[in-house]
Amino acid sequence: MDDVLEIAGRRFSSRLVLGTGGAANLSVLERALVASGTELTTVSLRRADTSGGPGVLDLLRRCGVGALPNTAGCRSAAEAVLTAQLAREALDTNWVKLEVVADEDTLLPDPFETLDAAERLVADGFTVLAYTNDDPVLARRLEDAGCAAVMPLGSPIGSGLGIRNPHNIELIVNRASVPVVLDAGIGTASDAALAMELGCAAVLLATSVTRADEPERMARAMRDAVRAGREARLAGRIPRRFWARASSPAVEGGW
Amino acid sequence: MDDVLEIAGRRFSSRLVLGTGGAANLSVLERALVASGTELTTVSLRRADTSGGPGVLDLLRRCGVGALPNTAGCRSAAEAVLTAQLAREALDTNWVKLEVVADEDTLLPDPFETLDAAERLVADGFTVLAYTNDDPVLARRLEDAGCAAVMPLGSPIGSGLGIRNPHNIELIVNRASVPVVLDAGIGTASDAALAMELGCAAVLLATSVTRADEPERMARAMRDAVRAGREARLAGRIPRRFWARASSPAVEGGW
Amino acid sequence: MDDVLEIAGRRFSSRLVLGTGGAANLSVLERALVASGTELTTVSLRRADTSGGPGVLDLLRRCGVGALPNTAGCRSAAEAVLTAQLAREALDTNWVKLEVVADEDTLLPDPFETLDAAERLVADGFTVLAYTNDDPVLARRLEDAGCAAVMPLGSPIGSGLGIRNPHNIELIVNRASVPVVLDAGIGTASDAALAMELGCAAVLLATSVTRADEPERMARAMRDAVRAGREARLAGRIPRRFWARASSPAVEGGW
Amino acid sequence: MDDVLEIAGRRFSSRLVLGTGGAANLSVLERALVASGTELTTVSLRRADTSGGPGVLDLLRRCGVGALPNTAGCRSAAEAVLTAQLAREALDTNWVKLEVVADEDTLLPDPFETLDAAERLVADGFTVLAYTNDDPVLARRLEDAGCAAVMPLGSPIGSGLGIRNPHNIELIVNRASVPVVLDAGIGTASDAALAMELGCAAVLLATSVTRADEPERMARAMRDAVRAGREARLAGRIPRRFWARASSPAVEGGW
Repeated sequence: MDDVLEIAGRRFSSRLVLGTGGAANLSVLERALVASGTELTTVSLRRADTSGGPGVLDLLRRCGVGALPNTAGCRSAAEAVLTAQLAREALDTNWVKLEVVADEDTLLPDPFETLDAAERLVADGFTVLAYTNDDPVLARRLEDAGCAAVMPLGSPIGSGLGIRNPHNIELIVNRASVPVVLDAGIGTASDAALAMELGCAAVLLATSVTRADEPERMARAMRDAVRAGREARLAGRIPRRFWARASSPAVEGGW
Repeated sequence: MDDVLEIAGRRFSSRLVLGTGGAANLSVLERALVASGTELTTVSLRRADTSGGPGVLDLLRRCGVGALPNTAGCRSAAEAVLTAQLAREALDTNWVKLEVVADEDTLLPDPFETLDAAERLVADGFTVLAYTNDDPVLARRLEDAGCAAVMPLGSPIGSGLGIRNPHNIELIVNRASVPVVLDAGIGTASDAALAMELGCAAVLLATSVTRADEPERMARAMRDAVRAGREARLAGRIPRRFWARASSPAVEGGW
Repeated sequence: MDDVLEIAGRRFSSRLVLGTGGAANLSVLERALVASGTELTTVSLRRADTSGGPGVLDLLRRCGVGALPNTAGCRSAAEAVLTAQLAREALDTNWVKLEVVADEDTLLPDPFETLDAAERLVADGFTVLAYTNDDPVLARRLEDAGCAAVMPLGSPIGSGLGIRNPHNIELIVNRASVPVVLDAGIGTASDAALAMELGCAAVLLATSVTRADEPERMARAMRDAVRAGREARLAGRIPRRFWARASSPAVEGGW
Repeated sequence: MDDVLEIAGRRFSSRLVLGTGGAANLSVLERALVASGTELTTVSLRRADTSGGPGVLDLLRRCGVGALPNTAGCRSAAEAVLTAQLAREALDTNWVKLEVVADEDTLLPDPFETLDAAERLVADGFTVLAYTNDDPVLARRLEDAGCAAVMPLGSPIGSGLGIRNPHNIELIVNRASVPVVLDAGIGTASDAALAMELGCAAVLLATSVTRADEPERMARAMRDAVRAGREARLAGRIPRRFWARASSPAVEGGW
């Protein structure tokens, strides 16, 4: 299948990006990673064991999954830039998932600090994938600032509320020329499928897998759901109708 | 994987039932059938070429897919019973998807004629899978009448409106002791995944695949979506929360 | 205002029908009735004090509100018919709100017993307002049986879930030639307004008022909401648009 | 009734703010204003005839409705500040509805220019009511900047899509200490009622009234809907339940 996801010139055959947070232990995480088929996984530098040992980075290396450092927990542009720079040194990658949240209750992104950080990181040579709210205006600004992907939320991190405002996601997709990755809020498989049907290029999720009753099984579900949603988008769905329409009348005569 | 669907003692590893109506031609239908992974497909006796030749029944035989005759187009119990009996002779199966619609504008099932027909068919030795609206009371009546499966609609046939009333589907699933198969209204992959997440045992769809711009691709999407929804149901999703919840705090110390 | 509701030749200027169940006491009920502006209120014969005294019937008489006996609690057509007949004697009215529920968990109407009872009651000279699920087919059958109004539910009685399936309510309204009264499921004011916007002729509610923290205030809210929804329906709302539309460009030159 | 809306020390008994844009002519507008019961109406300085004559300002004066100048059409903070200053001179009020949009397709507010303008206007002694998207973070920033009210959108201006993300509106209301006024996107009465039920202090709308088939009637509907939603919020609605709950069992013995 030649339907690949391309971000900043790098190509992925999986459109599911996994987060590592929330897993009970490394063994659970490993099984979930393998089941998900992901090729890219976010890691938080502050938590990752970069000194070797049986840490998450070793695990990713062993599974052949790319590590995408994030700036989770940062509350200002300055903090995020510093964290990204440390991650670049430690992980030898200039990719970063930029995440600057405004407060602990909502974990919603701070539009001002996020844009500021994005501009600084792009200027410093980073490939920036920016976590953002679902505001089409901010998404465009982040793209204009040189972000390689914009990552609007479906709903607050860990809420499991799915995509609260599909209309905004559609508006973002309609106007974006970089990949749109749905990030945050996914609760279950149909949420992930919907994200793809709305035109997102990929889905990032963590909690919905790592905190499910059976993480490995949910990882498999998410893998299939993302594929299903992508294929459904490309296949061209039937229109919605107020009245019914029999399938029979259109059947060709011969049978 | 030992998660099989069992209806009236017959076991299926696919939980997607396909309808044949609406396909542009047999070749399109064949590719869609194969892509969908279905093991059971509804056919309308009135339209099926049962005299041999390059008809839909040959196709099903060739693909190893079971034929489930339906009573599409019937408007009364008497008509449906007769159609089922003819199908039994012609197709050598006592399984029937019972479908008695009330009018052409909505193609909604007629509760009275449907229940009447179900009782007569069960008495006549049929294995009845009954198409019904999403009324939990009628669903239970059909089960009490001996139906092997109840098949509530998500929305009117061919409307593509998805599952209009998930609450009713949950009520039906909660109280049913036979398999609940979501039938009618599916528009796209996330609708099918949602049906399974609500607890349905399988999904039946036709138009959403046969009339998609690319039927084969949509068939593949539906196959994956049904699997995803089923797995997500079994995996135990995270609860919905009003506020956010960081994935980080729960991360174990070592990494 | 000449926009009156007409049911079986009787005219009402209020489109809000109140139920009496669930009120903490008669004094609370009285204030709610007055605040609601209702002209018609359901009473359950089994519970109503028909021997005089400070009962609900006295209250209705004093407030000038019509009593509409219902058959709440009935589980079969025979029971409902008997209850209606007793009510006719006791209350000197041949109007009846027919309600035959299938079970206590869902309190959903039993389609079979309801239609059976409706036919018998119409034959016996009753003016029947029939509580029904939101199935457009059953609604039409009840109308064909001679019911003076059909009363589809929004969601199960007392659930407060609002209108789960607006599409079905629209289908019912589209095809009905008798008034459609939304009955059951209303939780708050916007639900009642929506019912009217969908084309219902009136709304019946009880619990959402009688069990609100402040019943009198909620009664006032419902009165206004029903009016608002009715007027909005008649006023012809603007269409929904995917993109924005400035209000400014259409402003006439002079100002 | 002592439930008054207070913004920056000014008290209003109506919680409906009307916009003047989109009306076919002044006579239509006048009837709508009167029917709505509004006490505050936005005017666009660029369009208002401030030199006297039969303009919208004369009309407002005649009807006793306060004029709230807006900065509609502005695309930058500088432009908005200038417009506000001109309006202050012309209309002799230091109140302003700040509105800085990012582009013409979505008319969505520009978070950066809006916050910048808000800070400057507050510093210049204005009472600022700020139009914003539904991002709880931006809403809080505007409040921190000294805005007297925050005005989140339900959906894009003129779209009639209602409140796309009630969860965000609830988050904003939960954390705000200034009045939250739902602004933009209202299509019909139930949308306005819902805004109030979610905890908004008032609703601002224009197109849904001025472009309705019958503006005067829709204005009346909106007046009632806002009241209904407000009262319903204060009355304390019943909880939502998965299962039904009979109203009968709780009825007191005597009746």
